[in-house]
Amino acid sequence: MSDRLIYLPLGGAGEIGMNAYVYGYGKPGKERLIVVDLGVTFPDMDGTPGVDLILPDIGWLVARKAQIDGIFITHAHEDHVGAIGHFWEQLGAPVYARPFTANIAQRKLVEQGQPEGVVSVVGVYPEIITCGPFKVSYLPISHSIPESAGLLIDSPDGRVLHSGDFKIDRTPVVGDPWDRSLWEEVSKDGVKALVCDSTNVFSLEPGRSESTIGDAIADMMKEATGMVVATTFASNIARLKTLAIAAQKADRSVVLLGRAMRRMVEAATEVGILNGFPPVVSPEDALNMPREHVMLLVTGSQGERRAASAQLAQGSYLGLKLKEGDTFLFSSKTIPGNERGVIRIMNQLSEMGVDVIDDAGGKYHVSGHANRPDLQTLHEIVKPQILIPMHGEHRHLREHVKLGNAGGLTGIVAVNGMMIDLSGNAPTVAEYIDTGRTYLDGSVQIGALDGIVRDRIRMALNGHMIVTLIVDENDEPLGDPWVEISGLTETGSSNTALVEVVEEDLSQFINRANAKTLRDDVKLEKELKSIARRSAQGEIGKKPEVTVIVSRLS
Amino acid sequence: MSDRLIYLPLGGAGEIGMNAYVYGYGKPGKERLIVVDLGVTFPDMDGTPGVDLILPDIGWLVARKAQIDGIFITHAHEDHVGAIGHFWEQLGAPVYARPFTANIAQRKLVEQGQPEGVVSVVGVYPEIITCGPFKVSYLPISHSIPESAGLLIDSPDGRVLHSGDFKIDRTPVVGDPWDRSLWEEVSKDGVKALVCDSTNVFSLEPGRSESTIGDAIADMMKEATGMVVATTFASNIARLKTLAIAAQKADRSVVLLGRAMRRMVEAATEVGILNGFPPVVSPEDALNMPREHVMLLVTGSQGERRAASAQLAQGSYLGLKLKEGDTFLFSSKTIPGNERGVIRIMNQLSEMGVDVIDDAGGKYHVSGHANRPDLQTLHEIVKPQILIPMHGEHRHLREHVKLGNAGGLTGIVAVNGMMIDLSGNAPTVAEYIDTGRTYLDGSVQIGALDGIVRDRIRMALNGHMIVTLIVDENDEPLGDPWVEISGLTETGSSNTALVEVVEEDLSQFINRANAKTLRDDVKLEKELKSIARRSAQGEIGKKPEVTVIVSRLS
Repeated sequence: MSDRLIYLPLGGAGEIGMNAYVYGYGKPGKERLIVVDLGVTFPDMDGTPGVDLILPDIGWLVARKAQIDGIFITHAHEDHVGAIGHFWEQLGAPVYARPFTANIAQRKLVEQGQPEGVVSVVGVYPEIITCGPFKVSYLPISHSIPESAGLLIDSPDGRVLHSGDFKIDRTPVVGDPWDRSLWEEVSKDGVKALVCDSTNVFSLEPGRSESTIGDAIADMMKEATGMVVATTFASNIARLKTLAIAAQKADRSVVLLGRAMRRMVEAATEVGILNGFPPVVSPEDALNMPREHVMLLVTGSQGERRAASAQLAQGSYLGLKLKEGDTFLFSSKTIPGNERGVIRIMNQLSEMGVDVIDDAGGKYHVSGHANRPDLQTLHEIVKPQILIPMHGEHRHLREHVKLGNAGGLTGIVAVNGMMIDLSGNAPTVAEYIDTGRTYLDGSVQIGALDGIVRDRIRMALNGHMIVTLIVDENDEPLGDPWVEISGLTETGSSNTALVEVVEEDLSQFINRANAKTLRDDVKLEKELKSIARRSAQGEIGKKPEVTVIVSRLS
Repeated sequence: MSDRLIYLPLGGAGEIGMNAYVYGYGKPGKERLIVVDLGVTFPDMDGTPGVDLILPDIGWLVARKAQIDGIFITHAHEDHVGAIGHFWEQLGAPVYARPFTANIAQRKLVEQGQPEGVVSVVGVYPEIITCGPFKVSYLPISHSIPESAGLLIDSPDGRVLHSGDFKIDRTPVVGDPWDRSLWEEVSKDGVKALVCDSTNVFSLEPGRSESTIGDAIADMMKEATGMVVATTFASNIARLKTLAIAAQKADRSVVLLGRAMRRMVEAATEVGILNGFPPVVSPEDALNMPREHVMLLVTGSQGERRAASAQLAQGSYLGLKLKEGDTFLFSSKTIPGNERGVIRIMNQLSEMGVDVIDDAGGKYHVSGHANRPDLQTLHEIVKPQILIPMHGEHRHLREHVKLGNAGGLTGIVAVNGMMIDLSGNAPTVAEYIDTGRTYLDGSVQIGALDGIVRDRIRMALNGHMIVTLIVDENDEPLGDPWVEISGLTETGSSNTALVEVVEEDLSQFINRANAKTLRDDVKLEKELKSIARRSAQGEIGKKPEVTVIVSRLS
């Protein structure tokens, strides 16, 4: 068998979030591997109640630990770097990143008890990192966090360009401006595959530069008469600077609220990429300043319940309180699924008399991702033999392939677990790998299919009924079955306590049950469960989850 | 004490949904009352898992049953009529509605076991319904369901105009066109208060007519090569007709899928307001027709898990299957909070190769509510002494008052439970009434504050641990404590079964416990719970909900 070049997404292809991509080169099954990004995504009450963080399932990689030559992080967003601390020990390969990203990644490793010095700081193209059969270079590209990069991945079978998250921004406020000539240069000798961000493929207008919103924000802050609060993703360093400079122009001191906000500014300052960021004042000092001279820069743009935005909306945060006449700016887009939380905050602010400004008109926010015409621009520059959309839900990937096709490119929708063989002239699916999600739940990693979260959802939907029965040494019931409920109404349609109605039905069964049934735990539990559910259904119109505990004295 | 005119929202003011408004006239505390609308809102996993339907808390009304002279339903949307079947028995007053609304309301009453003939069918202005001290007329107004109406409510203290849900649409396809002269006529002698829809106060452009989208939809259906599926709210009768006529123009037969869809078309046909709706074909017949001659009109525009849209996206519905080349149109707006469900369907369709068209460009959907300039138009026609925004979250009500103020009107933000005295020259808050939400849970109505749903949420977030202990006649433990878990991982950090670790900790406590503790149920349960939580926290980093069951032999 001859060597082959493979691409395998383990996360991020079929969803926005949790990015984890693998490239491999070598004999089938013996490929040397590199990993690009190890990100997370966030749980929600709908599908993952109680879960703390969602990570890709890296079982396939762990089983091939010895084949992994390196881990490359493209930029410091959570959906690209958030899992590094949780997974590094299981993978054990060297980690590469540009300085700012490396700073964030290393903090995450240390937080999870991993050693200092794991992450190697690398420079950009034409610097080359040789990693097994691959030669990798970081290609600076503009995005909403500094030092974002695409990757040039050279293999014996040709060159892959992995776009990373990007937008086409010549004046990005912070970070590298879009450099067309760089992408032309790395593309001129032919590119086998372009693996490309798909997030904004449905956005028809060309993207706008970060620098286009500063003036409007400054004007708004000048006109505001009370305190101004602005929220955005803490990791959107460019926006933090845009907002802080606007505040400065409006003669307002900047206060950072929220751990992530302080940490990001700290990290960016440490590596020297936040030149020109105005000095900040402490929350305590802000308390003594006239409101019209204060701008709070706060976490919680997605309505997160414990972030600074939510706490301000509920009353106060570190002694700072909002009131009538203040203004609250959401300089952010609400990610689908987060609307309820954001709207809750908006209404709480409304109740306090605070004016809320959101991104309805696009005046105070621009996206960090390439829009449809910008994707076309990159396609035209790179002219890849194969277009592989990534960083998108299925609908984004499919639309992105269509867009490529319209421009004359061959494309393939490759979702998580689909291993693509890039060696031939056309891409082929080499194999389907079992992938999925791993949940960080408290301090434990659990599988998405372990049934644990399913049981939680069932209890939330149906309530939980517990039936206990004691059986003595002679397999005779000792007393009557006992019922307890949690998440169920106490009284149903017959106006008697629900537990009494169910206990009565269970007792009738137990009194009639023969010795064989009473000796058989499995049968006994099954019958008790079924009667309890039926009884509840009649009484409250709902079949609860039932746990039966038969205690045998012996 | 002199008579007074009061307004009291019990639902719908501070939220979009669950409308229930009360007007009263008479001596304070002895007012004769009328109720306008009895609607529902829908549960979600975030805040109301397992709940079937959310209803207003009408406790205040039930306590004043003898004072209620009538219930007026403005139109047949669920958020205005959905609770009538559940509440009518508790209120017992006559119900009034226009024919189509009456048809729907009566069906809902019968479904809940109430008698036929409860709802009186009424005509429109100048017909007058005398109801205690009130004289009420239905004022036809355009909205997204036929026979929508505002109410003219005359009291000895002056006239109130209750807008109902409305838009300004001169060509609404189905239902009454906007009739400016009618609203001028009823306003010309002076209006005390305009109680007004606020839904779209943040939409800056004038609203567009239902008739503006038919051609674009027909063109899309003509161009589509495979089957076309279109979804919208079943109650949006005008849209159903717009879609069906467009299908007819594109030489496609119409198939209705989903119970609500068939029921709405049936009701509208029964009362004769669906003239010109093309004949429909059955799903079975559609199976034998060329795909390009079929248009499925289906329920589930909000991503509801069991509706026809979701089932088609998952594979098939009544034998009908989608495939590559088909087109799926969301002729609807996604209500905030429903995005995840809608996006899930879009991605499933994408996986099947079905092209999805949504309302991104506003080509295929218009709102049923008045936009900001349209609200201004109504303000200017009515020139009320007092503007009272309704049908909105707090932010909508507040913004609507600001809009009124800018036009020279006096306005008041009156949220659920705020009883407004309208007798004087300026509105005053007469009283704050305890309001809230009632949950229909299975077949039982439970209070939002009963703690039942709170317990479900806690189990979903934290898992559930059950500790059982048997104590004998001498208050001695019989065997060791026994632990069962639900929604919790089986093994934690020490790689031993979680239940064993916890049982070990509990046993140690029990073995050391003195007779006094073992005799005291409250103390024993408290200690066992606290140890179980602490033990789990150490093992899995999570404190579960714990139910302790001590069985005493006697």
